[in-house]
Amino acid sequence: MHNPRAAMLVIGDEILSGRTRDANMHHLAGRLTESGVELAEIRVVHDDPDAIVGAIRALSDAYDHVFTSGGIGPTHDDITADAVAAAFGVPIDVRDDARAILQAHYDARGTELNEARLRMARIPEGATLIENPVSAAPGFSLRNVHVMAGVPQIFAAMVASVLPRITGGAPLISRSLVVERGEGDIAGPLRRLAEAHPDLSFGSYPFFRDGRFGAEVVARGPDPAALDAALARLRAMLGE
Amino acid sequence: MHNPRAAMLVIGDEILSGRTRDANMHHLAGRLTESGVELAEIRVVHDDPDAIVGAIRALSDAYDHVFTSGGIGPTHDDITADAVAAAFGVPIDVRDDARAILQAHYDARGTELNEARLRMARIPEGATLIENPVSAAPGFSLRNVHVMAGVPQIFAAMVASVLPRITGGAPLISRSLVVERGEGDIAGPLRRLAEAHPDLSFGSYPFFRDGRFGAEVVARGPDPAALDAALARLRAMLGE
Repeated sequence: MHNPRAAMLVIGDEILSGRTRDANMHHLAGRLTESGVELAEIRVVHDDPDAIVGAIRALSDAYDHVFTSGGIGPTHDDITADAVAAAFGVPIDVRDDARAILQAHYDARGTELNEARLRMARIPEGATLIENPVSAAPGFSLRNVHVMAGVPQIFAAMVASVLPRITGGAPLISRSLVVERGEGDIAGPLRRLAEAHPDLSFGSYPFFRDGRFGAEVVARGPDPAALDAALARLRAMLGE
Repeated sequence: MHNPRAAMLVIGDEILSGRTRDANMHHLAGRLTESGVELAEIRVVHDDPDAIVGAIRALSDAYDHVFTSGGIGPTHDDITADAVAAAFGVPIDVRDDARAILQAHYDARGTELNEARLRMARIPEGATLIENPVSAAPGFSLRNVHVMAGVPQIFAAMVASVLPRITGGAPLISRSLVVERGEGDIAGPLRRLAEAHPDLSFGSYPFFRDGRFGAEVVARGPDPAALDAALARLRAMLGE
């Protein structure tokens, strides 16, 4: 079974400067894995038109889906929508349905829909809106690119809106085993296990806790029984 | 003054699967900013040779420095050193000085330097070792690529080892201002401020706290006085 492959593009000076620790990568990675979509690559770039256009083109060509985070608010550095339009060579302008969503939202709050806020209704031609139940301003999907807000609560809500539209394959599940010895002792058995189970993927994640090294061995695949059998075999190989 | 531009490459199935929330990006971003090095791009790829080789070549060509995290332990999926050697077309083998460091470390602990652990002494020809004060197995710098471990404590120690070798320009500093109103109200003044101060960079980072929206406006540049003046001007523009 072919699982769709996806990439994420984070538009974020605040991540690159070290000011903010990103939360959206971790959220999207978890939700995609649950949905059977493989997240194969993440890129983080500056709020810079050339950087965004270049990354959108490269990732859109290479993967089934691209999810973006950030750069769709009302300020002058919110340039993601224009960059996505430029990447695909389509026009962009304020769209009536997006404007109506914003107008209703701000009318209900007695807030002016000023020129800056109206920027958030700029939608590339041919795009499908992504609902924003938190603060109204919509995201959008254009071809295989899904453009979402960077504020974590809004990003998460938009991911929940867009994921059901994407056809997932079988969800990947994982099983893990904590081994309190050096990775050097685990490496040989783990390599033989990976050779014996080419349908599963294995990772070994070393940790350093309370002054002791150990590793968490994780097996991933679509079939729970196969995962349990593989880890039982590893326990036996390690004499545990 | 030209500040060096850097990229980071995270080799990490565990980040892409959502199993682990990365800490190394945030750490490196902060340390580089303090040191006057601009972190311009981050990529996260699978533990896959083609993906790593492709990213190393692209980033090494495009930036002054590339920092990698992960994939240099003893297990079969630790392939970063071989991928970096392949990217530059140089041979790789166990190197005597790296082997001696590991031998001394494991001898002192009564642990066998087995075949798996010896993989960690594989160093591409022409590389300079990066000290690992936590668990001995060294990182390395090859041309403009600095290869470091993924375990956060070890990664941080290696960053501290390698940074003094890199010539930084003037450190970039930042000043911020919290504004408790919608970004739509800030956007106009902020755009005019950015036009008036082309030497500084401005970002606006919306937040949603206790049911209220607001934004933190951040100005960055090498000169503290210029930053203070710009934010004072913004406060005046906003009538605060």
